[in-house]
Amino acid sequence: MTPKTAARHRVLGLDPGSRVMGYAVLERLERGRFTYRECGTIAASARAPIAERLLELATGLREVIHELAPTEAAMEDIFTHRNAHSALVLGQARGAALLVLTEQGLTVTGYPPATVKKTVCGNGRAAKEQVQQMVTALTGLKHPPAEDAADALAVAICHCLHAATPELLRQTHKKGGRR
Amino acid sequence: MTPKTAARHRVLGLDPGSRVMGYAVLERLERGRFTYRECGTIAASARAPIAERLLELATGLREVIHELAPTEAAMEDIFTHRNAHSALVLGQARGAALLVLTEQGLTVTGYPPATVKKTVCGNGRAAKEQVQQMVTALTGLKHPPAEDAADALAVAICHCLHAATPELLRQTHKKGGRR
Repeated sequence: MTPKTAARHRVLGLDPGSRVMGYAVLERLERGRFTYRECGTIAASARAPIAERLLELATGLREVIHELAPTEAAMEDIFTHRNAHSALVLGQARGAALLVLTEQGLTVTGYPPATVKKTVCGNGRAAKEQVQQMVTALTGLKHPPAEDAADALAVAICHCLHAATPELLRQTHKKGGRR
Repeated sequence: MTPKTAARHRVLGLDPGSRVMGYAVLERLERGRFTYRECGTIAASARAPIAERLLELATGLREVIHELAPTEAAMEDIFTHRNAHSALVLGQARGAALLVLTEQGLTVTGYPPATVKKTVCGNGRAAKEQVQQMVTALTGLKHPPAEDAADALAVAICHCLHAATPELLRQTHKKGGRR
């Protein structure tokens, strides 16, 4: 491994659903800065049984990992949900995605949904549209990405900023600053 | 493929959980009969993060499939759950298991929990202990298996009996019997 490769941090943000999975890849630079690489959605056949859909989504996710070579992953932590049935369906998609990421050697950092919204929009209860607007502005995209891709971008951006926190703290300490 | 191989039906019953996964393998014979092959549990490190646990469970499941070479799989269908949080956790384990089974080319048949209990115990609301007793009796095991392995056995037995139904109907029609 050359030093250049060792220093590279490429973040894969994921928003797993049972029909559509949003993904986003950012190059994580120093001090919370990042550059946009790609975002998009992986869709499964709407009428296929859940087992087939999970296989389609997992295959698409492996292709994204193979092509974009992320070095770390981030996902929203879901602790609760409106109703048990949709929590079960969402859980299945999340479990399959987690398995693929871990099998590919990626460490997954989870962030509570409110933390993602607060980090990206400054408001833990921001609406979907606000998240879409903010990620578009922060990445310099010309058009807002699809909702699932925007959610994946939001968690990837959140990870870039939070992963930089210890680094920024060290920086502050080195300068002798402490408040 | 020799005709002998083509006729073999080996059922993998699965009871996926986020810490322990029960499994059972039965040889499915004609007319709803079956012979017992193996049952057991795959356990994940209790304190490991969910992503690691899913990887451990998936690895164990692939080993079971490799060793016991099932040709079809059966699992309980879960449509609802007591609370959203446990549904999400259970969903994750179920999604990872479904992905592994489908990747290994196994078709998964789902049965509602009440159907499994009714088929095995004659009562759709049978208690855990009754299920354990019945699967022990039906497989001729000397000692009752662990609860998760017993649940996996129950769904495998349910599949053996239900998969035989069309076969039994054909038999009845051939004899001219119809009631």
